[in-house]
Amino acid sequence: MRIQHMHTTPIYPLDPWQIIETEATRAEFARNATLFALANGTLGVRGALDNNEGDAAGTFINGFYESAPLHYPENAYGFARESQTMLKVAEAAEVRLQVNGEWVSPTQLAAHRRTLDMRAGTLTTEQTLSVNGQTLTYRSVRLVPWAASALFVQSITITSHDFSGEVKLWSRINADTRLKKVSDDPRVGSHLQGQLFDVSKQPFDAHTIEFEQATRRSGLALACAVTHVSAPLVVPEHPDDLPTEETFVYTYRLQPGETIQLDKYASYATTLQHPRDYLQSAATQGVQAALMQGVDALIAQQRADLDEFWQVADVRIDGDDALQQGIRFNLFHLFQSVGRDGRTNIGAKGLTGEGYEGHTFWDTEMYVIPAMVHTQPQIVRQLLTYRYNTLDRARQRARELGHKKGASFAWRTINGDECSAYFPAGSAQYHINADIAYAVQRYVTVSGDVEFMQTMGAEILIETARLWMDIGSYIEGRGFCICEVTGPDEYTALVNNNAFTNWMAQANLRCAVQAVDALKSDAPDVYDALRTRLSLLDDEPAQWAQAADQMFIPYDAERDLYAQDDSFFHKPIWDFANTPAEHYPLLLNYHPMVIYRHQVCKQADLVLALYLLGDQFTTEQKRRHFDYYEAVTTHDSSLSACIFGIVAADIDDMPTAYEYFIATARMDLDDTHRNVKDGVHIANMAGTWQCVVNGFGGLRVYHDMLRLRPRLPEPWQGYAFNVFFRGAVLRVEVDARGTTYTLLQGERLSFLHGETEVTVQAGQPLHRPQSAL
Amino acid sequence: MRIQHMHTTPIYPLDPWQIIETEATRAEFARNATLFALANGTLGVRGALDNNEGDAAGTFINGFYESAPLHYPENAYGFARESQTMLKVAEAAEVRLQVNGEWVSPTQLAAHRRTLDMRAGTLTTEQTLSVNGQTLTYRSVRLVPWAASALFVQSITITSHDFSGEVKLWSRINADTRLKKVSDDPRVGSHLQGQLFDVSKQPFDAHTIEFEQATRRSGLALACAVTHVSAPLVVPEHPDDLPTEETFVYTYRLQPGETIQLDKYASYATTLQHPRDYLQSAATQGVQAALMQGVDALIAQQRADLDEFWQVADVRIDGDDALQQGIRFNLFHLFQSVGRDGRTNIGAKGLTGEGYEGHTFWDTEMYVIPAMVHTQPQIVRQLLTYRYNTLDRARQRARELGHKKGASFAWRTINGDECSAYFPAGSAQYHINADIAYAVQRYVTVSGDVEFMQTMGAEILIETARLWMDIGSYIEGRGFCICEVTGPDEYTALVNNNAFTNWMAQANLRCAVQAVDALKSDAPDVYDALRTRLSLLDDEPAQWAQAADQMFIPYDAERDLYAQDDSFFHKPIWDFANTPAEHYPLLLNYHPMVIYRHQVCKQADLVLALYLLGDQFTTEQKRRHFDYYEAVTTHDSSLSACIFGIVAADIDDMPTAYEYFIATARMDLDDTHRNVKDGVHIANMAGTWQCVVNGFGGLRVYHDMLRLRPRLPEPWQGYAFNVFFRGAVLRVEVDARGTTYTLLQGERLSFLHGETEVTVQAGQPLHRPQSAL
Repeated sequence: MRIQHMHTTPIYPLDPWQIIETEATRAEFARNATLFALANGTLGVRGALDNNEGDAAGTFINGFYESAPLHYPENAYGFARESQTMLKVAEAAEVRLQVNGEWVSPTQLAAHRRTLDMRAGTLTTEQTLSVNGQTLTYRSVRLVPWAASALFVQSITITSHDFSGEVKLWSRINADTRLKKVSDDPRVGSHLQGQLFDVSKQPFDAHTIEFEQATRRSGLALACAVTHVSAPLVVPEHPDDLPTEETFVYTYRLQPGETIQLDKYASYATTLQHPRDYLQSAATQGVQAALMQGVDALIAQQRADLDEFWQVADVRIDGDDALQQGIRFNLFHLFQSVGRDGRTNIGAKGLTGEGYEGHTFWDTEMYVIPAMVHTQPQIVRQLLTYRYNTLDRARQRARELGHKKGASFAWRTINGDECSAYFPAGSAQYHINADIAYAVQRYVTVSGDVEFMQTMGAEILIETARLWMDIGSYIEGRGFCICEVTGPDEYTALVNNNAFTNWMAQANLRCAVQAVDALKSDAPDVYDALRTRLSLLDDEPAQWAQAADQMFIPYDAERDLYAQDDSFFHKPIWDFANTPAEHYPLLLNYHPMVIYRHQVCKQADLVLALYLLGDQFTTEQKRRHFDYYEAVTTHDSSLSACIFGIVAADIDDMPTAYEYFIATARMDLDDTHRNVKDGVHIANMAGTWQCVVNGFGGLRVYHDMLRLRPRLPEPWQGYAFNVFFRGAVLRVEVDARGTTYTLLQGERLSFLHGETEVTVQAGQPLHRPQSAL
Repeated sequence: MRIQHMHTTPIYPLDPWQIIETEATRAEFARNATLFALANGTLGVRGALDNNEGDAAGTFINGFYESAPLHYPENAYGFARESQTMLKVAEAAEVRLQVNGEWVSPTQLAAHRRTLDMRAGTLTTEQTLSVNGQTLTYRSVRLVPWAASALFVQSITITSHDFSGEVKLWSRINADTRLKKVSDDPRVGSHLQGQLFDVSKQPFDAHTIEFEQATRRSGLALACAVTHVSAPLVVPEHPDDLPTEETFVYTYRLQPGETIQLDKYASYATTLQHPRDYLQSAATQGVQAALMQGVDALIAQQRADLDEFWQVADVRIDGDDALQQGIRFNLFHLFQSVGRDGRTNIGAKGLTGEGYEGHTFWDTEMYVIPAMVHTQPQIVRQLLTYRYNTLDRARQRARELGHKKGASFAWRTINGDECSAYFPAGSAQYHINADIAYAVQRYVTVSGDVEFMQTMGAEILIETARLWMDIGSYIEGRGFCICEVTGPDEYTALVNNNAFTNWMAQANLRCAVQAVDALKSDAPDVYDALRTRLSLLDDEPAQWAQAADQMFIPYDAERDLYAQDDSFFHKPIWDFANTPAEHYPLLLNYHPMVIYRHQVCKQADLVLALYLLGDQFTTEQKRRHFDYYEAVTTHDSSLSACIFGIVAADIDDMPTAYEYFIATARMDLDDTHRNVKDGVHIANMAGTWQCVVNGFGGLRVYHDMLRLRPRLPEPWQGYAFNVFFRGAVLRVEVDARGTTYTLLQGERLSFLHGETEVTVQAGQPLHRPQSAL
């Protein structure tokens, strides 16, 4: 099916760098709290209203989770045993306003405006209050500084225009944070209910409080230190004395023309980074360091950090403000949520909501990394380091699954252990191992980071290659077959020879052979050490090569098409004509068995291989496969549209590519999947970048060579993006006349423009007319 | 694999009619409580020791269950929502003995003997106690009268040989009965824990108590009335006053030569049969009616009822006491557990234990009914009436699964609603619909019960046929295909075109066509009413016939074999050589995905079709398929051995058939699966009868004609069994000289002896020499 993009009116006014909310609407508190979230890869703070009306708040720390036993009504051997759920940690982002003893709600104001400024990295609230005909203004700026570890800063100023009276700010910290209940929607909700933490509270001074939260099962703990700076200096009251929360009430008398300011600093320190004994002092140091800088300096630093980010990451679109806003919004959230310390990753919803329990999936390697590797390769290294750090758990999981050798990475996880409680759409997705291998190879190719390959990458490649040898087997008359797996398409489960999986496994096996060969010749000592540590037998690489060469891919001669799996063409096509629109997504309306019984795809599966392994297919092949599989794909997954868009561009169907691009670029901003309340769709956000750069821009890396093939979508005047490759940063500007390449970093870079090799040198922009493609 | 029958020493002495325990061994309390269970199809009482040492007791009422919400760690649309668990109801079968103030344990006696008498239908305990050199004897007889509804009777006599002193009998009734905890073994344990009932207690007189137990969710309730008759008459004490239990303490002074007797009667009445208000009076009437008969009369009546049962049901084996004992034990338990009121069925463990939560599976139609239809056709009618009574629930379930027409019977259930919480080995086993249709057809053929067909059977056939039309579809170049189902073999799940399923569906469709044709011509009014009620379209039967004719069966030309499913031969064969013996059953040692990935069968699947639909295959075909599939079958299911035994006999491999028969006949009695503690294996028990009669005896019903082809297994001198067919009962006696047929009931019966039609008339036995086959 062609994607059903609803050309809805944008929720927020179009603006190239800002998302502006001009009305506080109760029904949309949760959605907006997701969209206005701030984060820095470690700490995420949902953009609930300052007074947390509607209880849409949530503060997350990347990698900080609670576990619980998984109970199956019918159990079986090897099922994942423990869940992991990203926790809402101590909530500090709540300040309620009282004027002359009356609570003020943003829904009842003379004016309300919140601005997420994607260049400044701040969320600003501006409100005008009318009290008995007297006016005062409320302004707050929030930020989660990118330069700090886990710091939340909020600065509130209240100015009286002609108001005389009392203003109170109730600044609350709640350490008894709880999670959403499970619902019928399998994508959201946790089985962890009730109080989740053992909480202790240490009053520090009149303006400062510290909480410690310890989980009951996962063994994690954190300290949260919160302090305030008030001008004029007033001593707050502490009206309640609950052991799990604290409220500071600052009371001011305001006269016309006067302004008061209250700054709030919250710093978190966890046992993910610090010894337990050191938590409080680390948290305290966090607020003290911030206090010494002060709000203005922190805001300035944030702007500088963001300027640096956009310098490389920005994608400019000329001629469509909606898409321009959409893609920047997506890149902003992607970068905000991504872990960058080698111990954390990025969840399917980033740090913006509770959806999917904060779990990391293949989204990282197939969606986030292919985008980020060309703008933030240093972060990609950290994401892959995270995987390397979970390798022992993946080996352990492989043994549980009965595999004698190799490692089986978790389908969904926070700490590396498998948390997938429905294996047909979970652990059966063995392709994640090849996906990780693909990302390793891609990262090393783009970055030239041989050191990573030698210290971590090769081991990942070897252990994943070994797993395929144990899952797969030679079947007489067919070749090397991989049975009983689920491919990316979760509407088809537990099949034999999923083409995507087999192709990716083939690439995985070949990369492993290359990695071993390279180690042998370039770093024999490293190789010897690794061989010993992994008990690598001399004939293993040859076995990998043979399995790769004999890899079986199901092919239907009559249709002249590869089959998504052995059985795909032997199933009836879903009756799309008689499926009402409200029955999508199918997964919420049909039993899995009914869905599995049909030719119907949730998302790109074989089509994803057409993109990732594009040099293995002719354009004509791609066209035929795109047409066939598009017709049976519902795009019920948010991971689908971007891939179809890229492949549509690849086969030069630019109108179709453009339609898919629209769906990706504003998916969350327009809430087209109607579940932004649970968090943004991170994979799609990264997919948006790929849609532009790999789609319209035609970026590929084949045989260690960068290739670009930029085309201009008809509705645009032009667009521009930057590409990191081997230490160089190439600026690519496209308009109706053609493409201009400029080297922003590096001395020279050779690459393919279309099929022609070109070289661009520092200071010498290169122009290629459209006709040259 | 050939079945791994361990030729263990029998646990109990060999005896043709009795199971005798001569030692009370703590480690085997639970196993023996299963084996010594007594039941009458409504009430089941485990054979725990009288003093319930080791807490192995359990009293069950057929169809009496509690439900609970099923919670899935990852939920999906259409998953079964509620569990059902057969409950342990008020436990009345406990009497503890105190002699001179000391508790007496059966593990410390001078002599202990318990006898399950399969002709008498009683469990007798005989113990000799030595107290300070003085001797007394304890004797109790238990029975669950077949002639009553839900009555348990126990008569205890204690005789002093030369003992003088005090004897106390503590008769306890516990109404706070609880279930086993879940374990890692998916086959046992319930999620219902803690107190399960709201209990009320009504003291009646000094000897009598009544409890009412009401479930909290399923809406069921029962009353249990218990009374005692003591000789000499003493007034019991009531030492505790718990609201959920009651103990009667009868104290006697015994002198040498004296005997005391205490009879205990417990009667149950449930809302399955009575209005709630009437429960207590129904239970009271139950004990009063029993009291009026008295223990001796009840025992005599029980013996008479059993004589009548064995008259037809008995299978005699000459020359192997172990097998003789085994088959009688199996038939005894089968008949004890089977529901016979049209509202209840038979669980996989009968009324003997908590395994599989008391659920009814396809075992009824494929194992119990094919045996019982030739000995107790009136009970088969009731079992199928039970299915008919669940037809509305099955229609509802079909709608939940997205099927527009037809009915989908529950894979596992008590009340008819689907309770399967792991659909790949549950709801995906759509074949249960065809199995039920097969049993309907078989019952009507054997019984000639046209009235059943017209009032119930035809509707079942039509609704199941309709379901196949909605599950299946025509696939270009293949025919009518049925995708995404699981066949009987649970080591292969969610496959396309499981051959067994497709063959059985084909038969189902054809039976439905025949049923409609017969109704049209024989009972047009009934047909019209049914057509209207089911909105049956005129062209539906023709569509069924066409689908049946074009049914696709996967076939491998190179191997010249039908494949168990489309993909079966494309998977690697399980590495049996490197699987240690302790890794069986595989399901307790490997992830389902790993098992599914291989050619390995838990049980007979395609081989079952060779038996059920035997006229569709040549003997040579059967041989080749038997050989291939036997080699990849572990028989990890207790449903496997009997089917392989029958087919082995069919292909005249009598030694192999004999080996499988041994495995079936003494499976529970020798506890070869090591889980008898959780209940007997009902399907296998019925399979034992089939192994003899359908296997060695060669009984089949093809094209409405009974066929026998009796052969004598080498180790036996002879065997005999009876076969009901169309109102006649044929006695079949086989020995080395040949077969003698005698008509026990009916005037004449024509049938095939081998391939020759013969007729036997009343009073004129017919002998056929072995050579005539």
